[in-house]
Parts: sequence; C-alpha cells; structure tokens
Amino acid sequence: MNKVSVAVLGATGSVGQRFIQLLENHPYFQVTHLCASENSAGKKYGDVMRKRWKISSDIPAYARDIIVTTPDPSRTPGVKLAFSGLDASVAGEVETAFANAGIHIISNSKNHRMAENVPLLSAEVNPDHLSVLSFQKTPGKILTNSNCTIMGVTISLKPLFEQFGIEAVMLFSMQAVSGAGYPGVPSMDILGNVVPFIGGEEEKAEIEPLKCLGKVVDGRIVHADFPISAHCNRVPVFDGHTVCVSVKLKKKATEQEIRKAWTSFRGLPQELELPLAPPAPIVYREEEDRPQPRLDLDTGKSMATVIGRLRPDPLFDWKYVVLSHNTVRGAAGAAVLNAELMVRKNLL
Amino acid sequence: MNKVSVAVLGATGSVGQRFIQLLENHPYFQVTHLCASENSAGKKYGDVMRKRWKISSDIPAYARDIIVTTPDPSRTPGVKLAFSGLDASVAGEVETAFANAGIHIISNSKNHRMAENVPLLSAEVNPDHLSVLSFQKTPGKILTNSNCTIMGVTISLKPLFEQFGIEAVMLFSMQAVSGAGYPGVPSMDILGNVVPFIGGEEEKAEIEPLKCLGKVVDGRIVHADFPISAHCNRVPVFDGHTVCVSVKLKKKATEQEIRKAWTSFRGLPQELELPLAPPAPIVYREEEDRPQPRLDLDTGKSMATVIGRLRPDPLFDWKYVVLSHNTVRGAAGAAVLNAELMVRKNLL
Amino acid sequence: MNKVSVAVLGATGSVGQRFIQLLENHPYFQVTHLCASENSAGKKYGDVMRKRWKISSDIPAYARDIIVTTPDPSRTPGVKLAFSGLDASVAGEVETAFANAGIHIISNSKNHRMAENVPLLSAEVNPDHLSVLSFQKTPGKILTNSNCTIMGVTISLKPLFEQFGIEAVMLFSMQAVSGAGYPGVPSMDILGNVVPFIGGEEEKAEIEPLKCLGKVVDGRIVHADFPISAHCNRVPVFDGHTVCVSVKLKKKATEQEIRKAWTSFRGLPQELELPLAPPAPIVYREEEDRPQPRLDLDTGKSMATVIGRLRPDPLFDWKYVVLSHNTVRGAAGAAVLNAELMVRKNLL
Amino acid sequence: MNKVSVAVLGATGSVGQRFIQLLENHPYFQVTHLCASENSAGKKYGDVMRKRWKISSDIPAYARDIIVTTPDPSRTPGVKLAFSGLDASVAGEVETAFANAGIHIISNSKNHRMAENVPLLSAEVNPDHLSVLSFQKTPGKILTNSNCTIMGVTISLKPLFEQFGIEAVMLFSMQAVSGAGYPGVPSMDILGNVVPFIGGEEEKAEIEPLKCLGKVVDGRIVHADFPISAHCNRVPVFDGHTVCVSVKLKKKATEQEIRKAWTSFRGLPQELELPLAPPAPIVYREEEDRPQPRLDLDTGKSMATVIGRLRPDPLFDWKYVVLSHNTVRGAAGAAVLNAELMVRKNLL
Repeated sequence: MNKVSVAVLGATGSVGQRFIQLLENHPYFQVTHLCASENSAGKKYGDVMRKRWKISSDIPAYARDIIVTTPDPSRTPGVKLAFSGLDASVAGEVETAFANAGIHIISNSKNHRMAENVPLLSAEVNPDHLSVLSFQKTPGKILTNSNCTIMGVTISLKPLFEQFGIEAVMLFSMQAVSGAGYPGVPSMDILGNVVPFIGGEEEKAEIEPLKCLGKVVDGRIVHADFPISAHCNRVPVFDGHTVCVSVKLKKKATEQEIRKAWTSFRGLPQELELPLAPPAPIVYREEEDRPQPRLDLDTGKSMATVIGRLRPDPLFDWKYVVLSHNTVRGAAGAAVLNAELMVRKNLL
Repeated sequence: MNKVSVAVLGATGSVGQRFIQLLENHPYFQVTHLCASENSAGKKYGDVMRKRWKISSDIPAYARDIIVTTPDPSRTPGVKLAFSGLDASVAGEVETAFANAGIHIISNSKNHRMAENVPLLSAEVNPDHLSVLSFQKTPGKILTNSNCTIMGVTISLKPLFEQFGIEAVMLFSMQAVSGAGYPGVPSMDILGNVVPFIGGEEEKAEIEPLKCLGKVVDGRIVHADFPISAHCNRVPVFDGHTVCVSVKLKKKATEQEIRKAWTSFRGLPQELELPLAPPAPIVYREEEDRPQPRLDLDTGKSMATVIGRLRPDPLFDWKYVVLSHNTVRGAAGAAVLNAELMVRKNLL
Repeated sequence: MNKVSVAVLGATGSVGQRFIQLLENHPYFQVTHLCASENSAGKKYGDVMRKRWKISSDIPAYARDIIVTTPDPSRTPGVKLAFSGLDASVAGEVETAFANAGIHIISNSKNHRMAENVPLLSAEVNPDHLSVLSFQKTPGKILTNSNCTIMGVTISLKPLFEQFGIEAVMLFSMQAVSGAGYPGVPSMDILGNVVPFIGGEEEKAEIEPLKCLGKVVDGRIVHADFPISAHCNRVPVFDGHTVCVSVKLKKKATEQEIRKAWTSFRGLPQELELPLAPPAPIVYREEEDRPQPRLDLDTGKSMATVIGRLRPDPLFDWKYVVLSHNTVRGAAGAAVLNAELMVRKNLL
Repeated sequence: MNKVSVAVLGATGSVGQRFIQLLENHPYFQVTHLCASENSAGKKYGDVMRKRWKISSDIPAYARDIIVTTPDPSRTPGVKLAFSGLDASVAGEVETAFANAGIHIISNSKNHRMAENVPLLSAEVNPDHLSVLSFQKTPGKILTNSNCTIMGVTISLKPLFEQFGIEAVMLFSMQAVSGAGYPGVPSMDILGNVVPFIGGEEEKAEIEPLKCLGKVVDGRIVHADFPISAHCNRVPVFDGHTVCVSVKLKKKATEQEIRKAWTSFRGLPQELELPLAPPAPIVYREEEDRPQPRLDLDTGKSMATVIGRLRPDPLFDWKYVVLSHNTVRGAAGAAVLNAELMVRKNLL
C-alpha cells in the first residue's frame, strides 16, 4: 500500500507535537510537510523545536530535517490530507483554505465542530456520521474530533445511551495542564492549587456529547436530546483528564449490566483493527480508588478510556469516574484514528 | 473574666496542632493540659513535636513546656472542657470517659456526630441545636462539628435553605492532603495526580448537611429532607477544600437574590462578636475564576467560606464553587467557635 | 513626621504587587503614584489588577482607586522616591530618567546594580556603601538591592566574612517559581520536574555577593576577593529560595563559633529599629531537616534569613542550608528596608 | 538456553515491583518465587498487590498467581539467584541466609555494600570487581549495587577518572520521592516544598563512588582516593534524581575532551549486548536547560545516564548536571544488569 502524503498544521504546538510522534512509522501515512507560523517557516523543524519539544522522548528523526512552511495549501504539493492542531484564532480560515484546495482536513480545533455537516467524530462512537462528509461543498472534506475532556466521557456514555437511554448527565472535570497547550497555564496559578474555571470548556462539555451521540437525518447531524451540566476545573496534573459523572438512565440497569455494557463495547476501529485502535475502547478498573492519571494513563497505549468506581447515585441512577489521555485519546490520537477510519472507508 | 481551663486531646495530630495554635492568647480559654498517646506522655510537648509540628510558624511558647499526659480525665484536674482531635479509632471511648467525668467535649471526630442528641454544630448554621445538650445523660456534654468538606458547603446552603428551600444537591470535592492528617497521603500517590476516592467521605457528605440543617423536635435533631449526591476527590493541594455544587431550589430565585442571601448572611457568632467569628461568614468573589485555595484561603482569618462562579445549571437551578479552609474552618477553628458559643450561652 | 510621597514603578508585576502590599500603612511612606505600561495607564489600579493580583490577600484598599500612569517623572508630581520593580528591558532608561528629574530610585532591577557608584545594598550587610550615593551625578540617587537568590546567601556570609574571612564559596540553589515573575515559568515545565538552568542567574550569583561584601574606596565600591561557584535550579515551589552552601574560611572556626556568629549578628536596621527590620536578621534552626520553604518562610515576617544543617564539609570547611523569601527579603522587602535606611540616614 | 530460576526478595516494595516489571519475559531469568513478609505470605501476589502496585502499568501476568512466601531459602527450591529489594532492617540477615544456602544474591540494599569482598557493582564502571566474589566464603555470592543517587554520578565520573584523574568532587542532589519507597515521604512534607535532608544519604554519596572507582588488590577492593562533598535534597519529583556536580581534575581537559570522554564511553554491558544495557551508557544533551526528569528520564529505556550543562567552574575545573532514573538505573535495573553480567561471565 502506498502511504498517503500528509501535512501537520500547527506543527510546533502541543497537539502538533503529538501528531508528529504518533505518525512516526505509521502504516498508512507519510508526513511530508510541517506547517507553522512565519516565525518558524524556512527553518528545519528540529532546529525550531530544540527548546520547544515537550514530549518525553526525542523529536522523531523523520521530522527533524523537514523545512517548516506556512500553512498554505500552495506550499504543500502532493498532500492529500492535513492534520490540524492549529490555534482556534487561525484554524477556521486556514482549514477552509485547505478544504477549498482539495485537501482533506482532520482537525482538533473547535472552529468547524458544530457545523451541521461536519462530523464531530469519535471513531468508536459515531462512524456513521462520516456519511455527511459528502454533503460538504468543498472538494476537501473537514472532519473534527471533540474536545479533550468530552472524548472519554462520550465514549463512556455511548454503550449506556444505546442500551438504556440517557435522561440526564452531570459531570465534573479535573483537567491536566497540558490541555491548555504551551506555555499555557502559568505555574504560579496552578502549583499546589486548583482553578475552578476553564474558559469556554463547560459550554463545549454541555453540547459536544449530544452531537457525537446524534443521528444523521437528511445529511445533517441531529443532536441527541438530554441535558448535561458541567463543572470544569484545572488541577496540577501534567497529562490526563479525570471526570466524575452522574448519569440518569431512561431504562433501569443493574451494576452488572452497566459494567458489561462497557467491557463488551467494541467499535469499528476494533473490528477493522485500525493501527491506533486500542484492543478494548473501555477498560474498567475494579479497585475502589481508580482510575488515576498516574497509574492508568498508559492503558491501551493511551487510547483506551478507563472507568472505575461505578456506584449508585442517591440523586440520579449511577455515578462513576472516567479518565482519558487528553493529548492522545482526547486530541492527536483521536484525530489519527479518525484519519485511519477514512482510509479504510475509502474516503480519501 | 476568668479563663476556662481546657485540655486538647490528640494534641500531637494535625487537628491538635491547629487547636494549640488557635487557642494561643484566647480570651476565653487557657490550655492547661495536652493529651496524646503513651509514646508522648511524660515528655514536654515542645520536645515531642520537634520534628512533628507541621504548621508554618513555631509551636506557641505556652505549649512547649506542658508535659503531655494520656487522654484520661483523672489526669486533667481542673479542666472543664476538652477539645478533641482524636483519631476515630479511640475518640468514641475517650470522649465518653471525659463526658462521664463531667468534662465537656468539643469534638472534631466523627464518632458521636450522628447521635440524635449530639449537635453537629456549625455556629452560624444551627446554634439552636445546642438545646439538645441538656438531653444528654452524662454530666459533661458532647458537641461535635461536621466533616471538613461539608462545613463550607453547609454554610453555603444555609441561606438558600432558609429563603428558597432545597430540593436536591450534587457536589464534587477537590480536597487538600492536610485533610488526611499526617503522615496521611503518601507523596507517591498524589504528586501530579488526583485520587478519585476518599474512604467514608461521600457517605458523610451525603448525610451531615441534612443533620446540620435539621430541626430540634422533642430534644432530638430531625434531619432536613432532600437528597445529596457527592463525588469526593483528593488533589495535590496542601490546605483548602474546593467544592463544586449544583443545587435545585424549591422556590425560584434570581442570581441577585441568591448572591444577596449569601452576602447578607450573618449568624449568632457575628451578632455576639465571638473571638474567632469572621466578620462575614460568606464572602462572594466576583472574578470568573475564583475561589482558589492559593488566593482565597486566608479570607476572614481562614474562618470565612468563600463562594464564586454562581451561574445557571442546565439540569438543576444553579451551580457555584465553594472553598473553605479544611483544618481551620473545617476542623479546629469550627470547634473553637462552637466552644466560644457555649461560653456565651452559659453552657459551661 | 510627614510621610514621603512615593511611586511604584512596574506596579502591575510580581515585585510591584509586593511593594504595594508592604507599603500599606507604612509609617514613613505614602504611595501616591502607581506606574505601569501604556496598556494599564489611565485605569484604576483595582480594575487593572482584578485578574492579575497574585498575592494571597486582597489588593490594599489605598491602591485600588489610584489611576495608573506611565513611568514618566513628569506624571508623578510631588514624588520624592520611586520603588522600581520594572522589567530589566526598560528599567535602565526609566530609572535614569527619574534620577535626572531628582527622584530617588530604590530598584530591584539588575540594570544599574554593577555600576561602581551604585550601592548593591543589603541593609544589614553594607550600609556604609550608602556613602557612594553622593558620587552619583544625578540629582536623584539610584540604590539597588541584590538578586533574590543572593540576598540570603550574602547575609549568611557576612558574619563569617567579618570574623573568619572567606576563601571560597560553592552554592547550589533550588529556586521558587515566583522568582521568574508572572506568567513566568509555564506549568508544563515545572510540575513534578526540576529545571537545572535559570538564564543569567549563576553569573549574578557569582559576582553580587562580592560587591555587597566589598569596601568603599574613594567613592567607589571595591569588590571582595574570593571565588564563588554557583549551580542554579528551578523547583516546583511557589515562594522561597533554598540554597545549599559550602564555604572555605580563612581562619579556622568551630561549629559553635559559626553558629554564634550567625545568631548574634545584628545590623543597622535592628539598631535603628526600622519598620521592616526583623528582630534577628538570621535565625538558626536546630532540627536536622530545616530550613524548609513550607515551614520557615514566614520567619521574621518573611524578612529573616533562616539557616540550618551546619556541618563539616569534607572538601571545604563547612556546609549549611540557607532559606529566604525571594519576593519579600529577596526583592520588595529588601528595597523597602533600604528606603527606610535612607530616610533615617537623612538621605532623602 | 535454559532460563535461570530466580526469586525476588521484598517483592511487595518499590524496588521489588520494579524487579518484577523488568524481569517480565527476560531472556535469562525466570521468576519462580516472590518473597515478602508474613502478612503477605500464603496469598497470591496479584491479590496482595491490588492496591499496592504503584507502577504505571499492570502487574505482569506471570507474577499475579505466584503464591508469596517468606524470604527463607528453604521455601525457594530450585532458585539459583535472588534479587533483593529488602528493607535494610532485615536485608543483612536474610541475604546472608540465602548465600549460606548456596543462592546468589543480587542486592539493592545497603547492608553488605561496604564489605571489602562484596562488589559494589555498576556494570559499565567496575566489572573487574566481580573477581572478589571468589573470596567470599559462602557458597552463594553477594553482589550489590550502589545507592540510587550515586549510580549516575559514578558513571559520569568513570571516563573522567580514567582519562584525566579526579582530585575532588562536590555534588548537590535533587532527589525524587520514589527513592524513599512507599509510603515513604508524606505528601504534607513535600508538596510545593523541598526538604534539604535525607537520612544517611550524604554519607553514602561521599564514599560509594570511591569504592566503585577502586581497584582490586589481593581479592579486596581498595577505594579510589579523592574527597567528595555531598548536599542531598528531596524535591517534589516522582522519579529521577538530578545531581549538580563540580569536579576538579588531575590533568587539564578541554570541554571537547570531556564531552568526547562521555559520549564515546562504552562498557562491558554494551560489548556483550546485555539485554538491559542501554546502547550508550551516557547521553549528552546540548540544550542549555537539560537534563530534566520530565523530558529525559526515558532515555535508553531509563538505563542511560543523561548529562548536560558542562561549563567551566570558577572554583574547580568543570561543572555539569547528571540525571538518572533512581528506581531503574539506580536500583532494580542496575541489579538486573549486574545479574546479566554474572550469567555471561559464567559466575552462576
């Protein structure tokens, strides 16, 4: 199989770095172009990143000598697909320009997420939403993944939604600093502290799961219909968003039924054995004090969603804790998995 | 006024240290006895604590030369009242022994909290519960204060409960490590991590506010009647429990009405100008990202409850964030305030 | 006594905030002007700082309504003295402009520190250096204090230098994040990590103590003459720089002699009972594991230098640990103390 | 090749857990016995460790069903070699008992480290010291590895010692909490704090490198002869000891010569391509702010020593920073590498 030539947009940022790491030796994709702002353009990626690479392993060798270009489709000849980790301030315009130029976009940015014919794709949750891509008018199609906090929550809700129906969800997040990018959260704000506010986060948390769990009707995505209330907090954790969830179901379910719904859950990525798919999308921990970022973040090469502490809720029906890796499963990894799905569904 | 001679039980522990700090130069009380386990008995408190004093200021001079005794009422002659910061494993028996010997107990331990004629007192919230003390059969009376997490939450609920009625509460805590005492939480468990479980904490959080907000009927405390659901978490913060609250009211209220209910709230401690009473029991912060432990923990000499982020809740009516100092307002400070109230109500 | 009208330059920064806190109700000084960049000019300080005030207590009431101006001497009528917490990128020029306009400068910035007729003043260490002020040609005089890391180290060296002479010093710092200002160190760089590099810090640490310990000869400061080697590191601590020191003395001294040299040390600030002077400039802790930022930072209202762990050094003569509060004793507090000394020496 | 049957002593502790992780699928060794205290004996390792396994990955499947036994050679039939992560309070006696029973001991404990015919082995540094094993009188031989802090430092010194000679070393450590085992350091002591004291650590740091760098003379190890001064500190880092080093050489060397000495350094483990040997024992980072635990701890599967910041020292000749993984390279990994060397040298 010939590898697909791809670009990474926003290659110097936190999500961009993860893309570059996850795409090393990828069986489907070959990164040929790295795009970033004018400050970096014209220089070798390895030189630009000497002091900015923040992942605990070296810059992959393949990326070091690529000359960075600005994110302009005329500068990425041969590229069929671009992974975007662009900042929201520029993502909208740049991604549209690539789509107009016939280059598909797999975006981690929020700009196009809520458009009715742009899938907010979580590969195990709503692969059927890919059908709306054909309703986009640009020659290149735009595919997005959801907010990093919401990714794991939505995966945890999917089997419950399918089997029991959901009436209401309340969620409370404790989010890692890497979710804010680099330099992001100043250390003076978060060392030994918690900040009970993250701009725009609760709004996303209260709507994105509804789109992911929605249905395609006449080429448009119609949202699921239940209320969500979110409390979002920043805590002094490096990677890994932990979320406490209370859920009210439409149909009563026992603890055993819910746990079985989770542990038996498999999606299209598992069926197709996509390269980045974890063997099980959901791993349930039996211990009373799990999941924890320190201990559970590597599960399924950081692509699994880890759940624990299922117990009755005096107000709603059940409560539990869900953890997922915010920059892998919640961002770059989810986007690459989505791209893998596009390849296997012959959508490139 | 002659000062009341008091003892501190569990004087070497975290709460005991706070008692000793807060009782320095107290206008009502004179600490004459410090009680701890056999290991410490017979030695000067200052020597025992050389490496165990964990508060950022020196051991008060008055305490250094007191010879530690075991917690036995026969060893505390002249003492009328004992502050207990004993571990739950011994608190029940020891506190009962003191009460039998005619020494009043102000306890921070959980053992007697739920007895129907033992007040779970938060001085601003339910001073009327002191009336049940006379129904206790021992010559010394036992008075308790609530769990550290619940203290601030209950204060925040009190004006809402009075003015609008409460139908349901969901709460999510991010609790400091000092709440687990010393040595308490191992650093390997919490550095850069969160632990979504604290043994026994959710059970307390779901019942104690109901007792505090209850009514005295025929010498017994009858609980308030609304459901509470709690998710309790440990975070890498030294002092200060932050709690996200969603509340459903019986009677609709506007944002302005709720904020006014909080900021105008005053209790008996304020009226009586008790030494440890903060000028305002509740302080509301206008900033979008407050309260935070780093910035708000000193408010009202750490005796105030700080609230922020009042906003509509898509599921319940309102959501907000509440912070209180877990070892001051949530433990030793609350107990001293309760004792001050007993003095002024002539209950000693 | 009429209070001296003063301005704070760089009033919105970390050091500026400390100046404003420490100057509240100061017996000698009245802050009448707050200067900051154009972005803040024309607005009330309280409004500008709503989300930027990072000290754990509210903005002092006196400062909230002051209208911020740009740091231009024509905009600070009546001001006799300006405290500068300006960034080094602008401090040189601005401070010179104020001095030319006849306004004295007490600066925490590095720009003028090494000029031979500008004292690098630590009020207990080298008050005699004030004599070089008269050799400055501007009508306003410039007085600086040393780098935050070096402050405590130099105080610890002063009695040893006087009594035993110093041949060599090796020091190793573990510095708090507040030393880098705000936003300063990104949390992704320092959470659960150490960074063994702080730009320009080792260079300052290797020369500034020599100037502080130097002599005035013909109106110029002649440096002390011994080699210093410094290793500077950033650690995840909020406030408080801890420094390990190995020192080689000229004249042999016993442990008891050294400890006595420290504990009996008093300077001019103590003699004059300056408002911000700690009762003892140096406090020695007997415990084997002290000083620690958590436990010792408040000593002497954060103006004392805390030393511990004096023990023989297999290579040099002695080793010990020294802690001082980097934004109080190491910056704003030192500057205010220096200004107090100027007042009492009739240098204003 | 038939695998050697091995036991892990102290299997429930921090170092024991690392042994179990590193020995999974090991080409030379098969873990057949896990030994721990009476509390754990008779139970399956997986059950004992449900809440005590602290490494970020699951307990290896092979270990879960092994029934834990007490550390008694009569209970480990067939075992030829035992890896010891025992606490120093029991290690001396137990290890001797195993050696008497003809079972070789690879120990991470300090008890036998300083005996003159017990090698303190760092496989790349002093493999020739294995020759003293034959001078031990027990049928089983005891082999130790050095203290976790010292391991990386000694590796960094080895090429300098060989090529230029060493006159003096001063070192300052910033040590991770995992070095104290579990529960180890209480979070209240280290969150946002540094503790400038670790019991017994400086003593080990000042002598162990001298033994490692020593020579075998008549079956005894004669120490290298230069003074070392150590300042040891605990910092809020999970894994990874960072050490600042100043070194005085006997023969002058240029920066280039020193860097070449490090980067060209290879030892017997590299030559023999031992399973756990890193390709290069020393990796030098060019960036001005490296090494850092966050970014460099995985280097060479955590078996490499990472050095950076080589620069002239105003007092000695050179200073630099060295990082190694304290529980892998500094403990269990070093011990396994030593055992691999014994196998290949036919010493089992």
